[in-house]
Amino acid sequence: MNDLKKYIDQNQDRFVKELFDLIRIPSVSAKDEHKPDMLKAANWLKEKLLKEGVDKAEVIETEGHPVVYGEKMLNEAYPTVLVYGHYDVQPAEPLDLWNSPPFEPEIRDGRIYARGANDDKGQMFMHIKAFEYLLATNQLTCNVKFMIEGEEEIGSPSLGKFCEDNKEMLKADVILVSDTSMIAPDTPSITTGLRGLAYMEVEVTGPSHDLHSGLYGGAVDNPVNVLCEMIAQLRDENNHITIPGFYDDVLELSQEERAEMARAPFDLNEFKKGIKIKKEGGEKGYSSSERTGIRPSLDVNGIWGGYTDKGAKTILPSKAYAKISMRLVPHQESKKIEKLFKEYFESIAPETVSVKVEFLHGGEGYVAPTDTIAYQAASKAFEATYGIKPIPVRSGGSIPIISLFEKILGIKSILMGFGLDSDAIHSPNENYSLEQFRKGIETIPHFYKYFAEMSK
Amino acid sequence: MNDLKKYIDQNQDRFVKELFDLIRIPSVSAKDEHKPDMLKAANWLKEKLLKEGVDKAEVIETEGHPVVYGEKMLNEAYPTVLVYGHYDVQPAEPLDLWNSPPFEPEIRDGRIYARGANDDKGQMFMHIKAFEYLLATNQLTCNVKFMIEGEEEIGSPSLGKFCEDNKEMLKADVILVSDTSMIAPDTPSITTGLRGLAYMEVEVTGPSHDLHSGLYGGAVDNPVNVLCEMIAQLRDENNHITIPGFYDDVLELSQEERAEMARAPFDLNEFKKGIKIKKEGGEKGYSSSERTGIRPSLDVNGIWGGYTDKGAKTILPSKAYAKISMRLVPHQESKKIEKLFKEYFESIAPETVSVKVEFLHGGEGYVAPTDTIAYQAASKAFEATYGIKPIPVRSGGSIPIISLFEKILGIKSILMGFGLDSDAIHSPNENYSLEQFRKGIETIPHFYKYFAEMSK
Repeated sequence: MNDLKKYIDQNQDRFVKELFDLIRIPSVSAKDEHKPDMLKAANWLKEKLLKEGVDKAEVIETEGHPVVYGEKMLNEAYPTVLVYGHYDVQPAEPLDLWNSPPFEPEIRDGRIYARGANDDKGQMFMHIKAFEYLLATNQLTCNVKFMIEGEEEIGSPSLGKFCEDNKEMLKADVILVSDTSMIAPDTPSITTGLRGLAYMEVEVTGPSHDLHSGLYGGAVDNPVNVLCEMIAQLRDENNHITIPGFYDDVLELSQEERAEMARAPFDLNEFKKGIKIKKEGGEKGYSSSERTGIRPSLDVNGIWGGYTDKGAKTILPSKAYAKISMRLVPHQESKKIEKLFKEYFESIAPETVSVKVEFLHGGEGYVAPTDTIAYQAASKAFEATYGIKPIPVRSGGSIPIISLFEKILGIKSILMGFGLDSDAIHSPNENYSLEQFRKGIETIPHFYKYFAEMSK
Repeated sequence: MNDLKKYIDQNQDRFVKELFDLIRIPSVSAKDEHKPDMLKAANWLKEKLLKEGVDKAEVIETEGHPVVYGEKMLNEAYPTVLVYGHYDVQPAEPLDLWNSPPFEPEIRDGRIYARGANDDKGQMFMHIKAFEYLLATNQLTCNVKFMIEGEEEIGSPSLGKFCEDNKEMLKADVILVSDTSMIAPDTPSITTGLRGLAYMEVEVTGPSHDLHSGLYGGAVDNPVNVLCEMIAQLRDENNHITIPGFYDDVLELSQEERAEMARAPFDLNEFKKGIKIKKEGGEKGYSSSERTGIRPSLDVNGIWGGYTDKGAKTILPSKAYAKISMRLVPHQESKKIEKLFKEYFESIAPETVSVKVEFLHGGEGYVAPTDTIAYQAASKAFEATYGIKPIPVRSGGSIPIISLFEKILGIKSILMGFGLDSDAIHSPNENYSLEQFRKGIETIPHFYKYFAEMSK
């Protein structure tokens, strides 16, 4: 693959231009009004795969947004790599915090600024470009399948059934995914753990309509105050989550395992500086890396109720709402946590209000072993590009579908991420470094090469 | 005044039509975009007063929205009544809960549905129509001054200075106000107490931007969780407010005074049914009437932060906000309470976040004696219309300007309200009963009559 760097040099501008075309389609899966954009993005990808030379490509309907599937079956004797990615993105709101329009990509200081620049359009597209290189230069030594879904950001509700229905079509030796981050631009890493997720929306209702806070205040329990008091009861002074049974299934790591984890570089001051916080938070007795890597967490993702516009409106609101999610670790099950949360939340509601708890989405955590051929091939591929071995790390994020793949398809995944912590994914001004985009396209072909060699 | 009922019968339709014209002007003082509407409403009132026969009427500029002033000085020997009201209204949001457009009044089941139908356009307009009757039938035996402001719903920030600047012009023997409620359609009452107000907006900031709740959740304190925990610390398990020093100046009533208060009719089941709550709330050791009448309260009027749109966005928000107000009782001072709140709120903030507290508006409570000529005249006026003596009650609401009137102008106010608890003021579907509107116009002339007679 001596020609790899040269090939990228010669084509990088075109690669970025192509990616921009995809980014410009505002494929926000959470919002109904973007349904046509979802289809547009799916069709764009299908056409792109066909152009790159797959044997076939399809936009396959599901109950939600469609899945783009494509395959290049070169030789039955070759190992098969199933590339998974997603073309849907998070909502771009709050729009006023973006320095450039979220769906009009702009390059500043060597970074692409746009919603989806990294997550996951940018990272997923590296695989299509790596495939282009391998095929164009006759160096592809694996069969390749692409499965690019449109519901990752809303919890992949249709992909489980899609996998069940297409087990034969999706048969592969490994699933390759770029939807995670690495430690630093000069410190590659492979994600060997993911957290699960249980995401709820809660509604607290007091009086049947907003009341005058003077005429009623003090005599009627205020659902916003009550919701706050209930949320406050979800964690104790040590930031342990107080839901009974919540920690029952949590996999406790041994001191040895924790010591091993602690070897991964982490600079608390840099961490705090990067997001401008005065002091880190979190559960007592654990390091910051452990708090995201091996411990579950609970966050209010959004809260609203009453008058939120300018000025002073003196109401006692009728309703208060919150979106509350928990990140789970092996072996917590999202369905069980959902039940525990609901029971506890309802149990702490005072008699003065009524409470509704709705489960929005969830999924299980994942742990990948490092002694597989696939992990070793990925490790060598990173080494080929970066000159050093990647560090195995446990990420705090969730890609619920990864554990589903294992359960339904029986295939392990390799999480070969090229994102950086500074990419602001899910936030305003999401960005992706051109250098990382390039390094990804450079690393992936090596994975195919080593995986084929080691599979022999 | 034998012709009073007949006069109203003959003109009631026109009265309502005129009121509708005023209601249609969306004079929301809290919102900048309604500034032209504020001026339009003020000019409409000036023209109306001139048409009714005042000697002069003006729209007087202030630093905020203008004050409409008009006067009819008949005779130096007559007592002077200063009528206070306001032409501004609360914001109409949430609009989707209205059954008819808030600024397009509609009569259903004998009630006018619109923002301002009662508060205070409907009630204030009764005074203009009572004045019309008295002047048209040559029965006015008082001098009358009108002071109708446009900032009551935002705390009357300019009216204090207006009073200071126009002490001579505003000289009067009593201030007459209809901006409160009575107990029930067949149970008239006069408000002898009002609560003060201290209204804050708080902002809690965690990380500099919204973070991915997977990658950071557990290691970074979430400002929404923190805000909830701080709000939860504002009251204890007995619903006492926990701010140190908060109750220091609260006027404690004697057992005799509380027993006297308890004689006012109050049906807890009706109260709960009216606003569809399962159980009343409030401070331990007090009745529902006491909780709004003689005890301070604390309510979150609005809260917001993070993702509040449809679906599940997995962010750890950068900021969380709340509007928090306290109703105060004599002799609490809003400026002192503001300071105590700010100090306490900042003191309970964990080191992981930063906190801002902004004072939005406030004012002092008020207590009116019942042994004055003005109170007795009002009492007899109600008796003339309803056949029974009105009950003196302490309202939980705030009209901060009433205590300012006493302080600056040295004039006591009579709160002669015709609203009903079911009027949903400050809420969607605010309404005002045509019957109450009519009874107000019928009662007010009697006040002038008795006040003139008793002042001799």
